Amino acid sequence: MNIEHILPNEIENRSFEIIDEELKARGLAVPESTGFIVKRAIHTTADFDYAHTLCFSDGAVERILGLLASGAVIVTDTNMALSGINKNALNSLGCEAFCFMADEDVISLAKERGVTRALVSMEKAAAIEKTKKKPVIFAVGNAPTALIGLREMYLSGTFTPAAVIGVPVGFVNVEAAKELIMESGLTFVVNRGRKGGSNVAAAIVNAFLYKLTREKR
Amino acid sequence: MNIEHILPNEIENRSFEIIDEELKARGLAVPESTGFIVKRAIHTTADFDYAHTLCFSDGAVERILGLLASGAVIVTDTNMALSGINKNALNSLGCEAFCFMADEDVISLAKERGVTRALVSMEKAAAIEKTKKKPVIFAVGNAPTALIGLREMYLSGTFTPAAVIGVPVGFVNVEAAKELIMESGLTFVVNRGRKGGSNVAAAIVNAFLYKLTREKR
Repeated sequence: MNIEHILPNEIENRSFEIIDEELKARGLAVPESTGFIVKRAIHTTADFDYAHTLCFSDGAVERILGLLASGAVIVTDTNMALSGINKNALNSLGCEAFCFMADEDVISLAKERGVTRALVSMEKAAAIEKTKKKPVIFAVGNAPTALIGLREMYLSGTFTPAAVIGVPVGFVNVEAAKELIMESGLTFVVNRGRKGGSNVAAAIVNAFLYKLTREKR
Repeated sequence: MNIEHILPNEIENRSFEIIDEELKARGLAVPESTGFIVKRAIHTTADFDYAHTLCFSDGAVERILGLLASGAVIVTDTNMALSGINKNALNSLGCEAFCFMADEDVISLAKERGVTRALVSMEKAAAIEKTKKKPVIFAVGNAPTALIGLREMYLSGTFTPAAVIGVPVGFVNVEAAKELIMESGLTFVVNRGRKGGSNVAAAIVNAFLYKLTREKR
């Protein structure tokens, strides 16, 4: 196995060429409309399972692109996902991103109520819509309780998330929470099953941002 | 599929019980000595491939535990990996973690030389050993060029990384760079193949930190 000599700015294009070739070789047809998201998830994980498991509500891609193009707020459930979002692309669209998981008030309230910090930070995020006067897109890569909380706020009519990117990873309540989001009527991108993660949440957000800010991908 | 009612602080233990059960059901025996690392990689990705592909140089686990127990420096190749490292555990051991990828001098020097920022930031990291007077452990979750650069510094005698956690993800030069590290004589934890990522790099660092700071895992 030899090292291929390649310029730094060509690595990403070469990677996507390989992904295209392998999707074809595996007989996995990815539709144009969602392919840029599926391929970026594969690029981030080297895991072709995402071609099978990423699910989109009707019109989700167009709606999320529209929200970001007019300057939305993104809220993540980990600082790692927040850290992975491309800030140059985000700023150029007039969007902002936040994570409240490490906030003192979130930590103490979660302890007091005996619930996860993720749930409390989603509730805190719901308030941001009013102060920022911008729609809020949620990017959840870790905590199924975040998804459960968002769904409950939506169904009870207390808050409407503009869209949910629901890709938590894990073994406890992860699959069930994703199914609940997909049956909720919310606009979603969800990775069915156990897989996902903060890196995948950031990658999906970046796929949307790059679609709006780059000529290619 | 129903939501299981479980207290927040029990989710992690339940997850590891499920991982133990499934490893057994799949006939995958994970040795005690490295199992805590393999299982945390699976916990972070929900991907049991890590039970097959994580590789350790002789004595690597004991050596890395020893380095961290006496206060080492960890350098990552992404801010995302840095963000995922548990800072409480890190601080309690007197360890520090850095990422130089977004530093102005690294960005401009990489552009000037036509090389990746990852390579330049590894070179910058090599200098930290002298100023900090602490051994440097590298946690590489993204850039194969970081691994190639570390190996070259090591073989040329200019710098000796104390250990390399080499788990970049991707399609271009990733597999070859990992093989080079495994043949280099360096102390390593490497995930053979294309898979890995910033999340996996952080998870492996955390597995070591938790082994030293928690009673369980």
